[in-house]
Amino acid sequence: SISQDIDHILETQTALAVDLGGTNLRVAIVCQRGRILKKYVQPNPKTFQARMKLLLKLCADATRDAVGLNCRLLGVGVSTGGRVNPQEGVVLHSTKLIQEWSSVDLRTPISDALHLPVWVDNDGNCAALAEKKFGQGKGVENFVTVITGTGIGGGIIHQNELVHGSTFCAAELGHIVVSLDGPECSCGSRGCVEAFASGMALQREAKRLHDEEQLKVEGMDMKLAEPITAAHLISAAKLGNSRAEAVLNKASTALGMGIVNILHMMNPSMVILSGILASYYQAPVQNIILEKALVSAQNIKVVESHLEEPALLGAASMVLDYATRRIY
Amino acid sequence: SISQDIDHILETQTALAVDLGGTNLRVAIVCQRGRILKKYVQPNPKTFQARMKLLLKLCADATRDAVGLNCRLLGVGVSTGGRVNPQEGVVLHSTKLIQEWSSVDLRTPISDALHLPVWVDNDGNCAALAEKKFGQGKGVENFVTVITGTGIGGGIIHQNELVHGSTFCAAELGHIVVSLDGPECSCGSRGCVEAFASGMALQREAKRLHDEEQLKVEGMDMKLAEPITAAHLISAAKLGNSRAEAVLNKASTALGMGIVNILHMMNPSMVILSGILASYYQAPVQNIILEKALVSAQNIKVVESHLEEPALLGAASMVLDYATRRIY
Ligand SMILES: [Ca+2]
Ligand SMILES: [Ca+2]
Ligand SMILES: [Zn+2]
Ligand SMILES: [Zn+2]
Repeated sequence: SISQDIDHILETQTALAVDLGGTNLRVAIVCQRGRILKKYVQPNPKTFQARMKLLLKLCADATRDAVGLNCRLLGVGVSTGGRVNPQEGVVLHSTKLIQEWSSVDLRTPISDALHLPVWVDNDGNCAALAEKKFGQGKGVENFVTVITGTGIGGGIIHQNELVHGSTFCAAELGHIVVSLDGPECSCGSRGCVEAFASGMALQREAKRLHDEEQLKVEGMDMKLAEPITAAHLISAAKLGNSRAEAVLNKASTALGMGIVNILHMMNPSMVILSGILASYYQAPVQNIILEKALVSAQNIKVVESHLEEPALLGAASMVLDYATRRIY
Repeated sequence: SISQDIDHILETQTALAVDLGGTNLRVAIVCQRGRILKKYVQPNPKTFQARMKLLLKLCADATRDAVGLNCRLLGVGVSTGGRVNPQEGVVLHSTKLIQEWSSVDLRTPISDALHLPVWVDNDGNCAALAEKKFGQGKGVENFVTVITGTGIGGGIIHQNELVHGSTFCAAELGHIVVSLDGPECSCGSRGCVEAFASGMALQREAKRLHDEEQLKVEGMDMKLAEPITAAHLISAAKLGNSRAEAVLNKASTALGMGIVNILHMMNPSMVILSGILASYYQAPVQNIILEKALVSAQNIKVVESHLEEPALLGAASMVLDYATRRIY
């Protein structure tokens, strides 16, 4: 068709998106509509030098491939674990999951190598930006994204903008405390939402039950050498294991009360859950809000994200939104 | 002097400020610098009709007196308990402390009676506005005010503006939950900061100790018929009563963790404590932040308010700031 011919002639405006996670280093070419045209995935190296080298190599590969795909790259958006100064493009402080990753200027080397503008923010904030541009947060002025994966993170959109805070550590949603004497958290405190409800926390409880021979119930598919995970806890509870159920109820309550705390502070109109545990937590969290939140904060939607790659899409959105602002 | 003569000739631009609290209804004439030129205090009537009648009468009195004081009233600012829609000038929902105070349009009757523009917000938000214009929050872009009085309330300033939220119930700081099975709260939930650390909560614990004959210690000045209050608990702890000390430590920890939750969500650069318990809580809250907050959120000042009348001054600031914006 004619429109296809024109597509061939015109370059597509795209973003190069990078996601630096605890496990993988990913790079993708993302178009204006949020479609991933090409993706590169490698294990994230454990040292700073190897990581930077791989990052720049994958970006160079993608830049070359972009030409063949008829894509014009507008810039590079980077999502990373840790705390980020997005004004400077610097990772301030790494989480334990990414080592040798404090006070790292990402903007300068990437920009020098690719001759493109570079934006950087943390994964929770990128997830919120992804929802805002491509997901459930489209057109929503005030919302919060809570990522329930291995850890718990998130981002806050207030009046259509991210809340970064005075030292770039706003929206540390995993470390909202809901119990003065709850389980120990990776941050050194106790009773954080993450210590109750993250994938790590559920795995810890699943292992504990397994060690006490209280996890496996009849009908449960579980091989001998299989590593114990949160999924085993959820399937045990579904099959009637009351101790597994109690653990999950406690986790849901903790997450729900953490989200109630968000409602009582920021009063968003929507909470978006993403990450592997989102579908499990959506209903219980909605119920706990109905039970425990102030009447005027109860009328809020808790929805599941339908984005496959929130970090990459959010990283891309920093590039695409900036380009749009310059054009219009 | 000549400047004094000119002051006599020129009218002073002032605001009429109203504070509707659980105990009193107060009206004041407030000048640009935050000085209260005249104040009217009456018990806040228990019914809607009597309250509105007294409110309009005190405002009319003040308007008359303003002429004699050579004050030009620019408008009326109202601070009230409860949740407020400031765009409409309507009290949406009352607290138990102010009865018959839901869905009350304050703007229309006051504006009709006085022929002046009217602004309305709740007491926590007004306290934050007062700090911003006249207090510790001057020039601070992101800060939070926590009022520790009979109850616990507050307001959040983000990028120099109040955070109202999508249904005007942001900054419900008293109902941040820090314990899943803590004491019952007036809001119907459990483990809220207010249920641990408010004047009401401390009075409840003081009475409990008193009933168990565990409150009074040697050297403590306490008359037989005197009502037991938070002040008795504090003085008992100072004189070595270890049970009183334990109650206060728990209260400080709860308030401190509630504030840590604020830091991990909004990451302000300052926390301002006001209300009768502010001087007591300042040091322990600062310590708990050092102990429990994420490293990147620890570098925050917890300061005591030095404002005598935060609600009235905040109510006035809505008027004075709007007038300033129109002039410049
Ligand atoms: Ca975050
Ligand atoms: Ca408030
Ligand atoms: Zn934590
Ligand atoms: Zn409460």
